[in-house]
This record gives sequence, C-alpha cells and structure tokens, in this order.
Amino acid sequence: MAEYESDNIFAKILRGDLPAQKVYEDELTLAFMDVMPRGDGHALVIPKAASRNLLDIAEADLAPLFKTVQKVARAVKAGLGAEGVTIQQFSESAGGQVIFHTHVHILPRWTDIPLKPHTGQMEKPEVLAAHAEKIRAALAEL
Amino acid sequence: MAEYESDNIFAKILRGDLPAQKVYEDELTLAFMDVMPRGDGHALVIPKAASRNLLDIAEADLAPLFKTVQKVARAVKAGLGAEGVTIQQFSESAGGQVIFHTHVHILPRWTDIPLKPHTGQMEKPEVLAAHAEKIRAALAEL
Repeated sequence: MAEYESDNIFAKILRGDLPAQKVYEDELTLAFMDVMPRGDGHALVIPKAASRNLLDIAEADLAPLFKTVQKVARAVKAGLGAEGVTIQQFSESAGGQVIFHTHVHILPRWTDIPLKPHTGQMEKPEVLAAHAEKIRAALAEL
Repeated sequence: MAEYESDNIFAKILRGDLPAQKVYEDELTLAFMDVMPRGDGHALVIPKAASRNLLDIAEADLAPLFKTVQKVARAVKAGLGAEGVTIQQFSESAGGQVIFHTHVHILPRWTDIPLKPHTGQMEKPEVLAAHAEKIRAALAEL
C-alpha cells in the first residue's frame, strides 16, 4: 500500500488551511459536511492522526473514530429527520477512495430516496451550513 | 427505533441453528461469508451481543466490532488478491438494512469491476467455501 501523503484536503482541513462546515470535534476525531453530498446531511468523520484508510489506521485511532461515527450518525438521523442511515468507508482507489486520509461517510436516508451518484458537484455553502446547524443542534440534545 | 428481535438469521447463526461459512471468531465478534454476495469474497462481521444496528449498539461492542472489521478487511484483500476494500453498514430499512442484527459488509474490490446489485441470488456453497478458505489462510498469515 502507498504511503500517507499530507497534502490531501482532509489534512489541510485539520491544519486549518481549508475551511469546513464542522459538526463535531474531540481530541482524536473531526466531523464535517461533505462538500459534494450524495444527499442532504451527508457528513464525514475523520481521525486527526495520519492514516490512509481502514487498512492502515492504528487501533488507537480506530475505536475513537467509530465512536464518533456512531455519535454523529445518531445526530444526523435526528437532526435531518431521517428514517435510516447508511455508512460507507472506501479503502484504496479500487475500493472507491478519492481522498487518501481515512474517512467514514454518514448518509441520512429516507425510504424511496436513492443516494445521488458521486457527481463531483459542489453543494452551496449556505445549504451545507444549514444542515450542519441541524446536526450540531441534535448533538446538543442527544 | 424498534426493539431487537432474536429470530433474525444472524442470531440463528450465532446460536448454531443455521450454518455459515465462518472466517473468524473471537469472544465478541464473528465473521462469515455473505450468502448473497455482491462480489467474490463478500464477508460480514457481526457482534455476538444483541443489537439492531449502529444506532443502538453498545460502545463495549462497537470497538471490538470494527477491530474485527479491520482484521478481516485486510485478510479479504490479501486472500482474494483485491486492490481495495469497500465497507458498508446499513441502519434501518431506509438505510438499506434487511437483517436486523448489527452487521458490517466487507467487499473486496478490483478496478473496473462494479459491485453487483443486491439481487437476493444465493451463491453456490462450494464457491463460498473456497473464498472462506482463502480468507482464513490470509488471516493465518497476517
């Protein structure tokens, strides 16, 4: 497997060099809105420590990552009024990975609303901000 | 959210009332082949304790679950000679869940081979057994 490269956009978000609509942060993890969402409320959770994907992440980072995934998944479902949640994690290009810093997709779901394909279309910042606010409000309640 | 119901097929596999092509087992988790694979080597990891999905699983079961997911993902990739891995977890029907005992899908991936749709088509037992053997052999090596 290739080495971790620190010029990826999630590393830049962690360093504060790129903005993100953050919804949750603790010592080891960060959650924020996907700027190319496959549906309303599509959020991402990343570990703060460097790793490429699920295949190389340290065990000390793995458990906190999925603890945050669970927390944010509950808040995404509650905040967006969703009926279910889909979790996806892609490791290496063949697995669907595009950005090579470990990340987990959290997708709120509704019956009969399919996920949009990954088009590369950027969502409007105000839409992402509104969804982030709903998720933060749900986190404060949970 | 609805309550956990113990008549689901993964609970039956855990009780030994239904067979499965097992690839890994420890005190808290079990991994086995999906009988309706979306591609060669499609494996599942479940916690032994009762929970419906990611939204209600106890933290004490969550960390061991994803530790096993990582272990089996590495073995699936090595054993099947895959180029990448896709992880999926579905919570509630709208999220894509069909069997209501927490489970995580591990899908070995190859460039330009898309996942097959979830058709409900059962794979031949000898094919599943051959893939399980490759994964067990990779686990013994890792």
